[in-house]
Amino acid sequence: MTSKHEFAVCDPQYERRVRESFSRQGLMKHLEARLTELKPGMAELRVAFREELTQQHGYFHAGVSGSLADVACGYAAYTLMPEDSSVLTVEYKINLMAPAQGEELIARARVVRSGKTLKICTADVFARKGETESYCATVLATIMCLAGKSDGK
Amino acid sequence: MTSKHEFAVCDPQYERRVRESFSRQGLMKHLEARLTELKPGMAELRVAFREELTQQHGYFHAGVSGSLADVACGYAAYTLMPEDSSVLTVEYKINLMAPAQGEELIARARVVRSGKTLKICTADVFARKGETESYCATVLATIMCLAGKSDGK
Amino acid sequence: MTSKHEFAVCDPQYERRVRESFSRQGLMKHLEARLTELKPGMAELRVAFREELTQQHGYFHAGVSGSLADVACGYAAYTLMPEDSSVLTVEYKINLMAPAQGEELIARARVVRSGKTLKICTADVFARKGETESYCATVLATIMCLAGKSDGK
Amino acid sequence: MTSKHEFAVCDPQYERRVRESFSRQGLMKHLEARLTELKPGMAELRVAFREELTQQHGYFHAGVSGSLADVACGYAAYTLMPEDSSVLTVEYKINLMAPAQGEELIARARVVRSGKTLKICTADVFARKGETESYCATVLATIMCLAGKSDGK
Repeated sequence: MTSKHEFAVCDPQYERRVRESFSRQGLMKHLEARLTELKPGMAELRVAFREELTQQHGYFHAGVSGSLADVACGYAAYTLMPEDSSVLTVEYKINLMAPAQGEELIARARVVRSGKTLKICTADVFARKGETESYCATVLATIMCLAGKSDGK
Repeated sequence: MTSKHEFAVCDPQYERRVRESFSRQGLMKHLEARLTELKPGMAELRVAFREELTQQHGYFHAGVSGSLADVACGYAAYTLMPEDSSVLTVEYKINLMAPAQGEELIARARVVRSGKTLKICTADVFARKGETESYCATVLATIMCLAGKSDGK
Repeated sequence: MTSKHEFAVCDPQYERRVRESFSRQGLMKHLEARLTELKPGMAELRVAFREELTQQHGYFHAGVSGSLADVACGYAAYTLMPEDSSVLTVEYKINLMAPAQGEELIARARVVRSGKTLKICTADVFARKGETESYCATVLATIMCLAGKSDGK
Repeated sequence: MTSKHEFAVCDPQYERRVRESFSRQGLMKHLEARLTELKPGMAELRVAFREELTQQHGYFHAGVSGSLADVACGYAAYTLMPEDSSVLTVEYKINLMAPAQGEELIARARVVRSGKTLKICTADVFARKGETESYCATVLATIMCLAGKSDGK
């Protein structure tokens, strides 16, 4: 699946807006996740491995993959929303395809369809060991724009 | 949707097995989630509100709802699996229907179809304020039984 | 999962509106599906077995289960929408849990969350043999209301 | 999302096996769908527009998009299964992103993860008008291999 069209950015300050919103997510701090890349219609998040993020076999927990991918999708979509708007995840589906075993977990999301109210996004999740990334999960998400409702307090 | 049939338990020690597996999940400790109920084909998890679990507006993060519901589905299914088996989430889909605002988040899962290899589960997520629970998310999940592969180390 | 609240109907002529829309669906005619029950927030569809609806083993095709469940969800949601609106399926997920083998396939949908723009619905699909219904698929769907856009031509 | 690895084919006669199975699907005949391309881990289906395939506004019905995408995913996966096996859709999720308006509907599926028992597939659905294809739906599916259970009668 490829989406060749460039996305129109309606708020040139989107990066500041997205990063400010991300910084208010208590869960992202608690997981020590970082927003490592941001472009119109795209976002990447990373988190380093530690025991606090594991499932019962010592790999990254599916909940961490899901959380990272959901947030990556939300902010990929939020780059394309107007200044005075909030972002909301309507729903997502995740397929966990391989054990998420590695030093770092990476979620890369992009918008595949940018409607005014709804934006459809996919995210792929990779576990990195050294320079090798293994593909461990894929996500398909529906993100909603709440227009006229600023994301801040 | 109701599933009236009782499920057959093939391992009478299922509770010890499930609780032991749950206790090895680093993420559940990190979130301070508790496994508060367990019956054949059913599991309930709870987590108290704190800032470490929030999204940008101060409610429970969708990643917490997703993680709790996924784990509740997995262990609801695991109650019905044989002693010498592991449990694996193949995929889940979550619809976030209302802000998860309250003192406690509760995920209740049950098996709706118990195949030998795959078990299909649903979970509902509620945010509790005092004695009122508000329905905030619903999950549909596919859980896999890895037979002959003990869950422990 | 139970949803005890009655849903508010904002268009008392909802049944005429839903049935008129259903009658314009060429696919439903082609499958010979019938809209057999309609209440606020609920819809039931049925289709009799025939070879034109089979998959490779001679059971009802997953595409028939999916189509019926999608339409049932859409019209369950449409009962709660205003007169001057259109209905649109944003997305759905279906778990196929057992072979759909029988004389008739029945999809029963209900709204579990009725937001202004988005309505979340579930549907269960049963295959009926004589008086026995076997539960063969479950669906979780997101339906959208396009306000101010009449469904007719 | 890219999957660069070539998939290993364990049955050199996969095309004959897939086409024979496809030819037994009554629904595909009834919709007049054609299996227009088949490679290891990939399948394409097409269907021409006609009124029998419409929803209430005269576009291709979501049920047609879902059916085509599901079958394309199933047979993309089935190309990688052994001779003596059956193919089963466990579940799929579809996002309907734009009206499916055109002369022909095309579903292109590919395997993104090929496990022994489960194969994860995505499909994209396009509506073609003349030489222009518009992207109208995307699917994420879990397909199961039933080993030792021949697909034929």
